[in-house]
Amino acid sequence: MRGRMAVWWRCKSFTSSASPSRLAKPLIYLDRPDIWYPSSSPSGVSPYLRHAYNEHAAADIDGKLIANDIKATVATEIRHMKSSIRKVPGLGVILVGKRKDSFSFVSIKKKACEEVGIASVVVELPEDSTEHEVLAVVSLLNRKESVHGILVQLPLPNHLSEEKIINAVNVEKDVDGFHPVNMGNLAMTGREPLFIPCASRGCLEVLHRCSVEIIGKKVVVIGRSKIGGLPTSLLLQPRVFIETITLLFGLERHHATVSVVHAFTKNPEQITREADILVSDVGVPNLVRGHWLKPGVVVIDMGSTLVKDSNNSHCSHVTGDVCYEEAIHKASAITPVPGGVGPVTISMLLSNTVEAAKRAYQWTERSYQQEQSFSYIPLSNVHI
Amino acid sequence: MRGRMAVWWRCKSFTSSASPSRLAKPLIYLDRPDIWYPSSSPSGVSPYLRHAYNEHAAADIDGKLIANDIKATVATEIRHMKSSIRKVPGLGVILVGKRKDSFSFVSIKKKACEEVGIASVVVELPEDSTEHEVLAVVSLLNRKESVHGILVQLPLPNHLSEEKIINAVNVEKDVDGFHPVNMGNLAMTGREPLFIPCASRGCLEVLHRCSVEIIGKKVVVIGRSKIGGLPTSLLLQPRVFIETITLLFGLERHHATVSVVHAFTKNPEQITREADILVSDVGVPNLVRGHWLKPGVVVIDMGSTLVKDSNNSHCSHVTGDVCYEEAIHKASAITPVPGGVGPVTISMLLSNTVEAAKRAYQWTERSYQQEQSFSYIPLSNVHI
Repeated sequence: MRGRMAVWWRCKSFTSSASPSRLAKPLIYLDRPDIWYPSSSPSGVSPYLRHAYNEHAAADIDGKLIANDIKATVATEIRHMKSSIRKVPGLGVILVGKRKDSFSFVSIKKKACEEVGIASVVVELPEDSTEHEVLAVVSLLNRKESVHGILVQLPLPNHLSEEKIINAVNVEKDVDGFHPVNMGNLAMTGREPLFIPCASRGCLEVLHRCSVEIIGKKVVVIGRSKIGGLPTSLLLQPRVFIETITLLFGLERHHATVSVVHAFTKNPEQITREADILVSDVGVPNLVRGHWLKPGVVVIDMGSTLVKDSNNSHCSHVTGDVCYEEAIHKASAITPVPGGVGPVTISMLLSNTVEAAKRAYQWTERSYQQEQSFSYIPLSNVHI
Repeated sequence: MRGRMAVWWRCKSFTSSASPSRLAKPLIYLDRPDIWYPSSSPSGVSPYLRHAYNEHAAADIDGKLIANDIKATVATEIRHMKSSIRKVPGLGVILVGKRKDSFSFVSIKKKACEEVGIASVVVELPEDSTEHEVLAVVSLLNRKESVHGILVQLPLPNHLSEEKIINAVNVEKDVDGFHPVNMGNLAMTGREPLFIPCASRGCLEVLHRCSVEIIGKKVVVIGRSKIGGLPTSLLLQPRVFIETITLLFGLERHHATVSVVHAFTKNPEQITREADILVSDVGVPNLVRGHWLKPGVVVIDMGSTLVKDSNNSHCSHVTGDVCYEEAIHKASAITPVPGGVGPVTISMLLSNTVEAAKRAYQWTERSYQQEQSFSYIPLSNVHI
């Protein structure tokens, strides 16, 4: 492992011809949102890691491939749900104003919904909408039975209270996980939120799928936004009594030692250099330089900033918080930007929406499987 | 400062004959729950620090004195409220079962309420009460106008769902601050909870009153309970955009770099040795030894465990998480157990209850002061 932190591969017998989706562990669903499957296999190849030609460079974590696998699982569940109860999950999106980036994000989410079979409805409101008008739309979507998830595209125009509007979303439809009840339950030990913010769930899914060991590791999270940094730092810490979990499931949860670094941290690089796993969610391009990293660290770059090209000011590209060119010489694995955490985050929104619908209809994949096995009982076995 | 971390004294001109309460800064009220007054005075004596005869030993932080000062402020406010609107704050306590320690805690809280003029009512329920019965009492107290704060004494008997019962408490009466809405708002940047858990508010009050600099410091919190460790770690991190605060108030908040240590942390002493401020909330007597500490650290010991005396098994005494005898040779200041954070926590419950009543009656100390100044306008100044 070249003296780096061990990245344990889960799929011992993986070969390049095998389909990653067949080998991957299932999604971290909400009834057991952060279960860690300990791995003991030090060899093999993860389907989600693209190794560089240079053996001293970090492996790229293929967020698109992870997202595609998650989407495939979600799409299958939706097909089963449709065939079982003739219902599909519904997502309601509220977009206020004409911000180009928000418009683009909403389009991506809408397209992703279509791909997997989620019925999405986007309510576009003018920039000068009053709080009362936005709240009326939230209330309408809260009442609508065919809408199981509600997403308010952020940021909202300055004259609107984000807090009031987010708090008005029904906790059971809060697929973004930003409602204080969901955030509070995420923070407290022994509680389970109905939804975990998509970017954080995506970050955990990436670590799980690449079989990165979390328990007992030092994690440094840069940034404290409710979208990424805060929930990720909460999710990685112990949240339940280990005794209970061990007795009930024989499984363990994330028990990382988490430090949170921010703009007021003196010499942040001293702290980040201790990290086995580094998560950055700041939105400052190339903030994290090579000398901030410990050799072998796993880097999850949640930053995503549009930066103008130096050669052509009319063109721009998306850049992460981590200086990729420097980081690949230190890290053992890294999420590139774009193509890392971003696509996984979108797929987690789809997964959260399906979970919301499953809860609303009290439908589970297991009930579908039972239904199917019942319908295939050979007639010879039926005694009347 | 003997090479230790600087503990900045706020009260430059303090002399031992002056009353500490006159010199102390006001409480961190809920309309500005965690504002930090930067101090620039490196000399003077804090009224809340008891210096040892041995100059190399840590100063004891006098929690009882801090608590008495807070109680005096709270009592004054209640007198003013009573004289102004003929109302007093009310606290409803629910005690299920006959646990000796719970009974003792409730008695202490009830006595403290009496001291400051809060009308308290304790509803004692039998050990075998059903969830429905406990919820009915919560609902009754939620509706009762004279009750402004509700406290469910924990732990509850095993057959009761703590989550369901705490969640049923009206957020506006949740003086313990354990409701997920309050915890979620405490966690998220830019949000303000209605109540901060008493022990954490107490911890911050101790640091403020002893003028311990927080901004930019490394804080290590041991433990993640919702009572102490978790809210303290959240409270010490940045929670608002500094630009907004600086522009609006010219003040800064706590911007410590927080690491959370727990049972799964490998070599915790390596992390705690980096701390400028160490907060422990585990309940394991003498867990934190002298070699876990950096010279000059400020130690806040939130642990409180009943331990049998080695000489006499019929007698017992309360012990903290920190090995006091070893810590005093390393720390610059330390909260002893008993007499440290404990009394301050009780006084914070009183303060939270008064805040709840003030909100319910929309009454403020300022409105009282205006009322008073109006009633003292000399007749000669009144022109009809």
